[in-house]
Amino acid sequence: MQGQRIDVASEKPYPVFLGVTLENLGEYLATRIGMGEHLLVVTHPNIAELYLDSLKKGLPSFRVDTLIVPQGEEEKSLERISELTSAAIAYGADRKTVVLALGGGVIGDLAGFFASMFMRGMRYVQIPTTLLAMVDSSIGGKVAVNHPAGKNLLGDFYPPLAVWTDFSTLETLPWEEMLNGLAETVKHAVIADEELLSFVERHAQDIKARKPELYKELASRSSAVKVKLVSEDETEQGKRMFLNFGHSFGHALEAEMAYQGITHGQGVSIGMVAATHLAQERGLMSNAEVQRLINLLKSFGLPVSIKGKNPQTLIDLMGADKKNYQGQKVLVLPKGIGQAIVVRDAKDEEIMRAWKKVIK
Amino acid sequence: MQGQRIDVASEKPYPVFLGVTLENLGEYLATRIGMGEHLLVVTHPNIAELYLDSLKKGLPSFRVDTLIVPQGEEEKSLERISELTSAAIAYGADRKTVVLALGGGVIGDLAGFFASMFMRGMRYVQIPTTLLAMVDSSIGGKVAVNHPAGKNLLGDFYPPLAVWTDFSTLETLPWEEMLNGLAETVKHAVIADEELLSFVERHAQDIKARKPELYKELASRSSAVKVKLVSEDETEQGKRMFLNFGHSFGHALEAEMAYQGITHGQGVSIGMVAATHLAQERGLMSNAEVQRLINLLKSFGLPVSIKGKNPQTLIDLMGADKKNYQGQKVLVLPKGIGQAIVVRDAKDEEIMRAWKKVIK
Ligand SMILES: NC(=O)c1ccc[n+]([C@@H]2O[C@H](COP(=O)([O-])OP(=O)(O)OC[C@H]3O[C@@H](n4cnc5c(N)ncnc54)[C@H](O)[C@@H]3O)[C@@H](O)[C@H]2O)c1
Ligand SMILES: NC(=O)c1ccc[n+]([C@@H]2O[C@H](COP(=O)([O-])OP(=O)(O)OC[C@H]3O[C@@H](n4cnc5c(N)ncnc54)[C@H](O)[C@@H]3O)[C@@H](O)[C@H]2O)c1
Repeated sequence: MQGQRIDVASEKPYPVFLGVTLENLGEYLATRIGMGEHLLVVTHPNIAELYLDSLKKGLPSFRVDTLIVPQGEEEKSLERISELTSAAIAYGADRKTVVLALGGGVIGDLAGFFASMFMRGMRYVQIPTTLLAMVDSSIGGKVAVNHPAGKNLLGDFYPPLAVWTDFSTLETLPWEEMLNGLAETVKHAVIADEELLSFVERHAQDIKARKPELYKELASRSSAVKVKLVSEDETEQGKRMFLNFGHSFGHALEAEMAYQGITHGQGVSIGMVAATHLAQERGLMSNAEVQRLINLLKSFGLPVSIKGKNPQTLIDLMGADKKNYQGQKVLVLPKGIGQAIVVRDAKDEEIMRAWKKVIK
Repeated sequence: MQGQRIDVASEKPYPVFLGVTLENLGEYLATRIGMGEHLLVVTHPNIAELYLDSLKKGLPSFRVDTLIVPQGEEEKSLERISELTSAAIAYGADRKTVVLALGGGVIGDLAGFFASMFMRGMRYVQIPTTLLAMVDSSIGGKVAVNHPAGKNLLGDFYPPLAVWTDFSTLETLPWEEMLNGLAETVKHAVIADEELLSFVERHAQDIKARKPELYKELASRSSAVKVKLVSEDETEQGKRMFLNFGHSFGHALEAEMAYQGITHGQGVSIGMVAATHLAQERGLMSNAEVQRLINLLKSFGLPVSIKGKNPQTLIDLMGADKKNYQGQKVLVLPKGIGQAIVVRDAKDEEIMRAWKKVIK
């Protein structure tokens, strides 16, 4: 088997395979779960069309069924889990069945949460096909669905059997989707890996030209940051919090716009810039470092400011973040490039000034 | 604090308090979670009427909200979890909120599963008010909801912060409900505690006369069996399986009758007799031991046979048990009184003969 393996330390440790192929998953599974077992692929119609044959080609010694879920964030719901349950039972699934989550973060979160509860838990494999899923959502064992009362409101910490990443699936991913993963990659670089930031800067043109070799390197390094942080802190008490850099600001913006007309990557991009301004005001970042981040984001076409927003509304929305603690907003601020800190004493005035720097 | 404490060994160990009072829970909680925290009581209307005041009296130093769920097995559903989610958000619940599940197995399973997934997990306390919940469902961390495709089909292993058992709540429990807990108690005695069986036999008349002191003793001993078995085997790979004694047969009967006109206790009672006949045929039980079980069940008015059922239908239904393994029916058989074994080689012919012994 080609490719690289990194292990996530966790209550139940699991391997992340990077640079493997869909066709080879069967070979690995045969060593992990034995042959003949029942597999349930959960995926979207477009992904099934592109990649289901390749995946199935490697699974001749298993009984394979497929559950197709329509695309879209709104499919991450309890209702969809109920439908998956009926379909799984119709296919004779039981607690020995292994779920293969083939897709982006929506499929990973939904199929993973479904696996966590069906007959009190089946095993599942994350097979990420978006850059965001590869570097972020497939790693760390967080699974969830949305609820009218909040995004990712119902979920679990439920580590997969393995993460199986075939970079070649990125070739068909639209550029807008790529940008969501790039925003998280810049985040990983800023909070934990200065070299990754230099790498992305050096190769910005080739990344935009979508050279496959570059994505391998970029995604591997970016995944490694996530593996490192979640390994040190599985249930989000300490360092895993750093991954929230840009997200407290970004989520407020996404919520204010009701998730319309702004992508998650765009929200995170503007959010990182806002947080970085706050960090600069506190003397944690130099002006040059702030500019470095802004220039990089701009070079990909990610936004670094937004028009016509009311900062007070955004601050109020930040007050509803489920990561806040005892009424205090919890923020992640970069400390130079490659480090971060968590602050629980940010005043609304300084948050206001940070917002004003990104509202034009 | 009066009462007895036994600890469940588990990945996350937790204490079971027996013979405490609802009024004293607050005192204990203050030491476990600190004062001022947000509590969310989940209960039924009739239980709220009977016991909510007593519970709340002990909680002056907490912020307490109550979510009322209609009675009935059909309330254990994903739809109800969705409604609890909306209500919890409206009350400002967050991941620091502690759920108090005040009721029988329906409330315990539902509120526990809700707690397991809300914001990826809040803490919860089991406060069982039925005999069945006290000796069985509140212990062991199994939580679940039903789905049209199967009972308890979606769930989790999610240990509570503590189990808080006030025996005085049994005073208002209808006798039919008491019988469900008595059937499980007889089960515990047969698989693991011969002394408990003698105790129940000796005091059958006083139990029927509902003498409170007896319930304390009976429920404490019966709970202790469950604590012991789940402590040795949290996720149901080994000895915990013994708890399934009578249930493979019983569930088939309940399913055949579509859960109408038969209680769970009645199903388990007939199921234990059937399994015991099979055990006798295999030389694991003497005729006298079989009669001892039958006489005891009869003395409470629990059924030991049933009219007009087709044994083949029941065998087919047993084939759908989620505890079966690789197409083999997995059965628990008593070995004398006080021990049990798991068998995976039972032939349909012997199961047929066992059914015939209980079908009149
Ligand atoms: N669990 C976590 O830790 C975590 C972390 C971050 C984000 N998330 C979640 O991830 C979700 C977003 O994930 P996403 O950005 O991957 O979006 P997504 O899963 O919706 O995928 C984006 C789109 O790309 C399509 N697609 C996927 N792979 C493709 C491919 N190889 N070629 C062509 N098209 C492809 C999908 O069909 C979809 O339409 C959100 O629901 C978010 O909450 C979870
Ligand atoms: N999690 C487990 O390990 C486990 C084990 C066994 C059973 N269960 C589940 O438990 C459920 C059955 O539980 P149950 O038998 O407690 O039934 P239940 O929860 O439905 O309670 C029975 C009835 O008694 C009423 N009641 C409860 N306490 C009362 C009191 N003190 N005074 C008066 N009325 C009271 C309730 O309102 C209800 O109508 C089933 O859903 C079953 O699947 C779970």
